Amino acid sequence: MSLADCYKKVRQLSVRICSPLQIEDYVVQPVVDVSPPKWHIGHTTWFFETFILKPYFMGYQEFNADYNYVFNSYYETVGNRVIRTDRGNLSRPTVADIYKYRTYVDDAMENFLREEPSAAIRELMILGLNHEEQHQELLYYDIKYILGHNPLFPAYDETYRPQVFEQPTAQWISMPEGIYEVGFEGEGFCFDNELNRHKVYLNSYQINTAMVTNAEYLEFINDNGYHDFRFWHAEGWDWVKNNHVEAPLYWHHINGQWFNYTYAGLKPVDLAAPVCHISYYEAYAYASWKGMRLPTEFEWEAAAHQFKWGKSWEWTESAYLPYPGFKKAEGAIGEYNGKFMVSQKVLRGSSEVTSPGHERVTYRNFFHPNLRWLFCGIRLAR
Amino acid sequence: MSLADCYKKVRQLSVRICSPLQIEDYVVQPVVDVSPPKWHIGHTTWFFETFILKPYFMGYQEFNADYNYVFNSYYETVGNRVIRTDRGNLSRPTVADIYKYRTYVDDAMENFLREEPSAAIRELMILGLNHEEQHQELLYYDIKYILGHNPLFPAYDETYRPQVFEQPTAQWISMPEGIYEVGFEGEGFCFDNELNRHKVYLNSYQINTAMVTNAEYLEFINDNGYHDFRFWHAEGWDWVKNNHVEAPLYWHHINGQWFNYTYAGLKPVDLAAPVCHISYYEAYAYASWKGMRLPTEFEWEAAAHQFKWGKSWEWTESAYLPYPGFKKAEGAIGEYNGKFMVSQKVLRGSSEVTSPGHERVTYRNFFHPNLRWLFCGIRLAR
Amino acid sequence: MSLADCYKKVRQLSVRICSPLQIEDYVVQPVVDVSPPKWHIGHTTWFFETFILKPYFMGYQEFNADYNYVFNSYYETVGNRVIRTDRGNLSRPTVADIYKYRTYVDDAMENFLREEPSAAIRELMILGLNHEEQHQELLYYDIKYILGHNPLFPAYDETYRPQVFEQPTAQWISMPEGIYEVGFEGEGFCFDNELNRHKVYLNSYQINTAMVTNAEYLEFINDNGYHDFRFWHAEGWDWVKNNHVEAPLYWHHINGQWFNYTYAGLKPVDLAAPVCHISYYEAYAYASWKGMRLPTEFEWEAAAHQFKWGKSWEWTESAYLPYPGFKKAEGAIGEYNGKFMVSQKVLRGSSEVTSPGHERVTYRNFFHPNLRWLFCGIRLAR
Amino acid sequence: MSLADCYKKVRQLSVRICSPLQIEDYVVQPVVDVSPPKWHIGHTTWFFETFILKPYFMGYQEFNADYNYVFNSYYETVGNRVIRTDRGNLSRPTVADIYKYRTYVDDAMENFLREEPSAAIRELMILGLNHEEQHQELLYYDIKYILGHNPLFPAYDETYRPQVFEQPTAQWISMPEGIYEVGFEGEGFCFDNELNRHKVYLNSYQINTAMVTNAEYLEFINDNGYHDFRFWHAEGWDWVKNNHVEAPLYWHHINGQWFNYTYAGLKPVDLAAPVCHISYYEAYAYASWKGMRLPTEFEWEAAAHQFKWGKSWEWTESAYLPYPGFKKAEGAIGEYNGKFMVSQKVLRGSSEVTSPGHERVTYRNFFHPNLRWLFCGIRLAR
Repeated sequence: MSLADCYKKVRQLSVRICSPLQIEDYVVQPVVDVSPPKWHIGHTTWFFETFILKPYFMGYQEFNADYNYVFNSYYETVGNRVIRTDRGNLSRPTVADIYKYRTYVDDAMENFLREEPSAAIRELMILGLNHEEQHQELLYYDIKYILGHNPLFPAYDETYRPQVFEQPTAQWISMPEGIYEVGFEGEGFCFDNELNRHKVYLNSYQINTAMVTNAEYLEFINDNGYHDFRFWHAEGWDWVKNNHVEAPLYWHHINGQWFNYTYAGLKPVDLAAPVCHISYYEAYAYASWKGMRLPTEFEWEAAAHQFKWGKSWEWTESAYLPYPGFKKAEGAIGEYNGKFMVSQKVLRGSSEVTSPGHERVTYRNFFHPNLRWLFCGIRLAR
Repeated sequence: MSLADCYKKVRQLSVRICSPLQIEDYVVQPVVDVSPPKWHIGHTTWFFETFILKPYFMGYQEFNADYNYVFNSYYETVGNRVIRTDRGNLSRPTVADIYKYRTYVDDAMENFLREEPSAAIRELMILGLNHEEQHQELLYYDIKYILGHNPLFPAYDETYRPQVFEQPTAQWISMPEGIYEVGFEGEGFCFDNELNRHKVYLNSYQINTAMVTNAEYLEFINDNGYHDFRFWHAEGWDWVKNNHVEAPLYWHHINGQWFNYTYAGLKPVDLAAPVCHISYYEAYAYASWKGMRLPTEFEWEAAAHQFKWGKSWEWTESAYLPYPGFKKAEGAIGEYNGKFMVSQKVLRGSSEVTSPGHERVTYRNFFHPNLRWLFCGIRLAR
Repeated sequence: MSLADCYKKVRQLSVRICSPLQIEDYVVQPVVDVSPPKWHIGHTTWFFETFILKPYFMGYQEFNADYNYVFNSYYETVGNRVIRTDRGNLSRPTVADIYKYRTYVDDAMENFLREEPSAAIRELMILGLNHEEQHQELLYYDIKYILGHNPLFPAYDETYRPQVFEQPTAQWISMPEGIYEVGFEGEGFCFDNELNRHKVYLNSYQINTAMVTNAEYLEFINDNGYHDFRFWHAEGWDWVKNNHVEAPLYWHHINGQWFNYTYAGLKPVDLAAPVCHISYYEAYAYASWKGMRLPTEFEWEAAAHQFKWGKSWEWTESAYLPYPGFKKAEGAIGEYNGKFMVSQKVLRGSSEVTSPGHERVTYRNFFHPNLRWLFCGIRLAR
Repeated sequence: MSLADCYKKVRQLSVRICSPLQIEDYVVQPVVDVSPPKWHIGHTTWFFETFILKPYFMGYQEFNADYNYVFNSYYETVGNRVIRTDRGNLSRPTVADIYKYRTYVDDAMENFLREEPSAAIRELMILGLNHEEQHQELLYYDIKYILGHNPLFPAYDETYRPQVFEQPTAQWISMPEGIYEVGFEGEGFCFDNELNRHKVYLNSYQINTAMVTNAEYLEFINDNGYHDFRFWHAEGWDWVKNNHVEAPLYWHHINGQWFNYTYAGLKPVDLAAPVCHISYYEAYAYASWKGMRLPTEFEWEAAAHQFKWGKSWEWTESAYLPYPGFKKAEGAIGEYNGKFMVSQKVLRGSSEVTSPGHERVTYRNFFHPNLRWLFCGIRLAR
């Protein structure tokens, strides 16, 4: 596919993800980690305007200088950012204005791509498209949070059916002690945090072919797992008590039955499906209760070709740290990953709302250990 | 005017106030004191559904039982309320849904009013209409806050011109010591907090015919008033320092000139106009700096026929307390005023965005001393 | 008594109040409103050093210039104050150092008072002694809080018996409508907030001869008073729920019986004694539950010669506001009262731990409506 | 040395560390991470009473059942703990009472140790002594914080001179790529977090023989390092801005010169000494500014025999995570380390206030990345 076609395809997907939304759904920010959908639509557009069109497309007229202030996220190099918690207070620019901005930039990009860009620009563009795919996944998370925390529980799409995922029979894969190579290699795109490919030494371990199901997780709940500090980190235990956590996010106990909010609305919990929307603390506590543990990200990567993954990101025991030889790029692009490499946990795999082709066995996702609005689950190791 | 006409007129005004808004403007809640406009539109409708149609209109079908949960405000008697800070997180019901609800209730009310209601219902309805007029004033405050805190400073209405108000020459009215009567009397409507009419003893005092202007307030700013604790209450001084307050709300110092956000957008401060959007703390500090004071609400009421008022609510020195013989009504309606009678200050007068006919010389408005998003100003006494 | 004798007597009482304390008890500050006892001992000494000795006693050598920084309280005129919440973090100066400071200043004062001071200095000194008596009352509050919140419930004095107070039979005193005079008049000392004496107009009212007892208050508790929002201000209701308040401060429900912490340790609640350590919110809620109300401070003052008072300060319905003609003194002394005249409630009477001779029928005490560590109770009006 | 002698020696050191303190210094808790010295003295005693005397010494009479409540720290298994932030509010038990408790327990231990304990008890005791040595180090940190944050800057010991530490010439040690073994092995004591000894694969790296000095760190300060976000983690940058951090803890810029608080009082910064009291965020930012990085804990351990360490703990890039085969002990003792293995960073080495013999090349210390009151410094790798 040409770069221009690639661009069009990725850009259209973001719009399609938002197509079931009402204008009001684009605006709100119920918690700090959730961004208003209109912000995602504007920010991903701002990326191409700022890093491609303004520096490289001669004669390009900026759409609106104030948007730089509104749609910047963390790129401290570029200018003053809107304080993140304020995003949900901004009614303007309107959704219509932002789509105008999007069309304007897409038109300019189409013109720009009439000529073959240089390798450097091409690389930047591919970064931009991968960046947009990350926001597509976040869009799904944020939309679910916004609708799933509304007392009316509106469906995103009444006909939405979760990806069919044939959960394999649970079996233990045995991995021998020794040196393994991890990290990206090859021709295609990868993020800076997947480099360098390097050797790690792993002790022998076992990792399960299947992810923990809702039925299994319910046993933990019913065995009083949320009320027994022995299974929890001290920090996790404080989190459970301060937030009165009793079940995964989106779960509701109604008339003696467990329901959870899905894109199709409130539905009975599917016992056979992998448990989802649990924090790292909960994943760890569940594993402790089972007398097992979570795999490290390297244990996961070394064995990943032997099991099926891709339904939801999987919490690992690993902290998010740089690989040997990790280097930040120069300039604003260099802020991409490195500055988050403290106090976060690595997740591996991908999820049912990951954009097609965005997943990769060396991909490293990362979140703070208390977060649950992502699609995340548990695979056990021992 | 018939009650039905009255109803129609008041209800239409709320809609007209919102007519320049974009859908996005209806949704956000930038601070806890500001409610999303769509909430006002729903809540005022809910009032008539809950207190008139459901108990008194036989055969009335509730529009949506969940709305009771969403649009209740403080009426603890009626059911579980949505926590106030959450209002801005609710994208649903949509603005269109709420207008449908509004039309549905208005149609039912029209039918209901075909027959002459009983005196008791009539009284409730008049309360409901006055309640809606209060929300109309709040709508104006909240819209100004929402648009005035947006980094794009969008105008509410480019052609909006503040009410022309011929500020009288500043003169001192001398009032003799003695007994005065205050509080509502007569036939029309008043709120419970204006009763009973009763006698108060006032010492001799002087009160000014003019309100403090922006030009006068600038002298206070320029004389370092915000940086000299001697003029401030201890609590006000903490407020100034913690919030880095340097000027009235909506003022911006740009290239050496003072601008303020108005419904028509950002404009140079009109020096001849009364100062507006200052907290009680600032009003008090200004008066202290002048070697004067604010009037009590009774000093204000006793002299109010001798000066012009109605441009903006005027902070008084009085705390918001019950009058002798004050009684709460039975039931949910009784929660109207009494439960706010602690830690608030009384304002007297009315403002340029008060609904026509809603103002009254005995009217008691009340807010916490730190609030500034209302239209409020300073009249001096000594 | 001579001024020198007066000085000695007042100064000795502060030391006597602290005599049962362990050094550790002098140091802690469990909540922001409580000051460490050693701070009171130092601060009251600092007052005489700063306002008498340094300006008026020729040749006086300051004890330690750093103490000005440590023992200043709110006197913003005098210098940078220690942030109030930090007081409990300061282990130095030690208790022994502070008593050395106290002796040093007392010796200097004794020398200073060998000559008859001018009328102006005499006035300042009398203010200083009244100031110290206020801190003596606070010392009692703070010591009770410090020991009463320790899980070991140590006694302040095992032999402490609350002042015997013959609670009169509860009767209603009827007061006729009319003009009354309130505020201080006469020769002796009064605080600036008791001036000017002025006329007020009171409607006819009734006020009770007896204060509400623990037995009566228990009826409110047992009738679910803490769980029925109808009796509470909105702000009080939030306070009850956020702080899980179920009973007066220092009450503990142990094996089905109510105990409360007293200076002699944990004891069964004395049902015949007046209820104490309740917030204004609770006092108001109790009165509402009885279908009655609290008196205003003027209703209290006008009738006070007809009932017995002095066991505990009595919450009134009045906000703490300046009297007509109130004037701040010049300089630091002027910060004494005026700057607290917002958001506080007036209490009238005095308490069992008020220093002898400090009470007065025109005395106005004031606290925020949520505070309970003072000795405060309820007298009903209607 | 016999176990009884060992016990005596360790227990005496805690008392000796506190010997320069005033009683007041034992009581305060200026921030949540600092515990009052008297709490350390009681808690380390409680450990032996709870885990040795009560279960294993027949006929032992508990000193005071309430102390279990006061001196428990994190051992959720044992009972309700005092909320950690409350420690500084407890004036009782007094320091004298706690020393009585200490003597009582030490006497009982002496009797108990007259007979040779079983191997299991011996192991528990050695854990208890190592636990006390950890608290000895914390005592030093906490005492420094308490005195160093007092506006009078009292010395802990006027004659205290920091351990002479001949900083070696800065040189790079080159380590070849390959498999290394890390973790404890041998006969003596180690903590559970040092096990199992296992293989790791390291890429080639260089590590410096010298720690970063104050002089070098000043270059970073003077080059605007605290004001350039490019060197910081996003989380570190927020921390710098929210806390207005401009220099290491205890540093004060006075009349153009840098001073820092030491145990001997406020002294000019020793430029040749290693920089101390900086957070992980600062250590990382310094390394970034130099174009280098911090070593991982395994890089540190593999090379540690080639450089001198022991002046202050050294921040590593590693997150605090379990080693392969890590197992919690059964019961309350099992809570020792495992439950902190999230969101913390590993430090390696030891410090000038580490108890003699407590240091070990495999020792893993761990703290949250924002903490600075420990003795911690920077060694660079690349």
